[in-house]
Amino acid sequence: MKKKHTILLVNDDGIFSPGLRFLIKICKKIGKVLVVAPEQNQSGMSHAITVDKEIKINKLESSKDYEEYSCSGTPVDCVKIATKKILKKKPDLCISGINHGANYSISTLYSATLHAAVEGTIEGIPSIAISHLDYSSKIDFSSYDNFLENLIRKILSSHLIKGVTLNINIPSITCKDLRGIKVCRQGKGKNIEKINSKKNKKNKFIITGHFESQDKSKDTDIWALDNSFVSVVPIQIDMTDYDYIDNYNDLDDVFQIR
Amino acid sequence: MKKKHTILLVNDDGIFSPGLRFLIKICKKIGKVLVVAPEQNQSGMSHAITVDKEIKINKLESSKDYEEYSCSGTPVDCVKIATKKILKKKPDLCISGINHGANYSISTLYSATLHAAVEGTIEGIPSIAISHLDYSSKIDFSSYDNFLENLIRKILSSHLIKGVTLNINIPSITCKDLRGIKVCRQGKGKNIEKINSKKNKKNKFIITGHFESQDKSKDTDIWALDNSFVSVVPIQIDMTDYDYIDNYNDLDDVFQIR
Repeated sequence: MKKKHTILLVNDDGIFSPGLRFLIKICKKIGKVLVVAPEQNQSGMSHAITVDKEIKINKLESSKDYEEYSCSGTPVDCVKIATKKILKKKPDLCISGINHGANYSISTLYSATLHAAVEGTIEGIPSIAISHLDYSSKIDFSSYDNFLENLIRKILSSHLIKGVTLNINIPSITCKDLRGIKVCRQGKGKNIEKINSKKNKKNKFIITGHFESQDKSKDTDIWALDNSFVSVVPIQIDMTDYDYIDNYNDLDDVFQIR
Repeated sequence: MKKKHTILLVNDDGIFSPGLRFLIKICKKIGKVLVVAPEQNQSGMSHAITVDKEIKINKLESSKDYEEYSCSGTPVDCVKIATKKILKKKPDLCISGINHGANYSISTLYSATLHAAVEGTIEGIPSIAISHLDYSSKIDFSSYDNFLENLIRKILSSHLIKGVTLNINIPSITCKDLRGIKVCRQGKGKNIEKINSKKNKKNKFIITGHFESQDKSKDTDIWALDNSFVSVVPIQIDMTDYDYIDNYNDLDDVFQIR
């Protein structure tokens, strides 16, 4: 008998998020599933880890092929505890999501959905993040059932290159209206923030904002999503700007005059 | 009269950290200084932002050329509030640090010291992060006084390329023992974690660990720091893995069978 795949699921919206629940349903059809997800919403936590503080986990469910834990830590903590404390061997795939809300362009840096998957990659596990552009907790994902099952099976069988995380975003349309999948680059863009203070509370702020594209090329996640494609951006761990190294201003004179 | 430079200072160790205090002393010699730093330690917070929660700031000091605020949010929040709520125009430089502890190789992803500076870069400000390899809060930085003043003046006058953040790490030696400055790439390495649970508390964990290099090349931050150089890694905002795009496995068949 063929050995079952093991899939680690994590997210940043929290353990009871509908996006995670939909993914659990799909992954149970494919293999053994371990869920370790934050007990509370951890959106915007990027690659944060808990330092010098206790992290608590609670087992919520356990059967032959399924285990589920909530975790008081960040999404990246969830991956660390899953791989180093709960699983006896590396899972075949780590999936983070499905996030309720976009994680493309500049959001790549802020997204804990993506960075939980990047942590999986650091641990040597093929890892992907899946986000849906609609922020509502009431999104109907059902039209993406077969599509996502096929995508996950494809990634399980295709052996992701070591060190790469796939950042997948799904546009706010039903699956039958999709035009395809685009493997593309992280487009240039910015969050235009509004930082508001409450009446009579001039030193207290809430940050909100909207996304603004700074990139009109057709090879970006921005273009793909605007044009009814699922965007897939391969993400690397190395943040070095090699162009700068090739052309850097010499700092040696700083050293000479110390 | 020559117009004074404005320097924004931020960190992740917290507003009263000796590393930040040392940097304030140096920057006051160079220009106007605004400090917005977390009221508590925010180490390991990476590029985290505060979502849907109030952020509080407190003015701690204010004179003609100096202002200082503590902030309840993350280091990245500090930069957002400084640039969008406190400063009337963009500062000439944003410096994050001096961090008590290393932020090179894989720590690039976890470091809030670095990512506060990356947020400065996103805001269009020339931005650098400075970390010292010694984690102690009792480091004697004094031998680096002239060196850092010259480095900061050099960066102010040399116009950093738009979109690049410099991630600077200082080895645990006095300045006179430095061999120089190396502009280099982010070396490959891993944190080998120990996740311990307390006696009788099997569901509560503390994550600790140590760094292990996976890179023997001489063009990395790991090599530079091991060999008594200050390492300077230029960091980019674009996390796309372009090699993968050039060689990706076709996902179109997933789309066909939806």
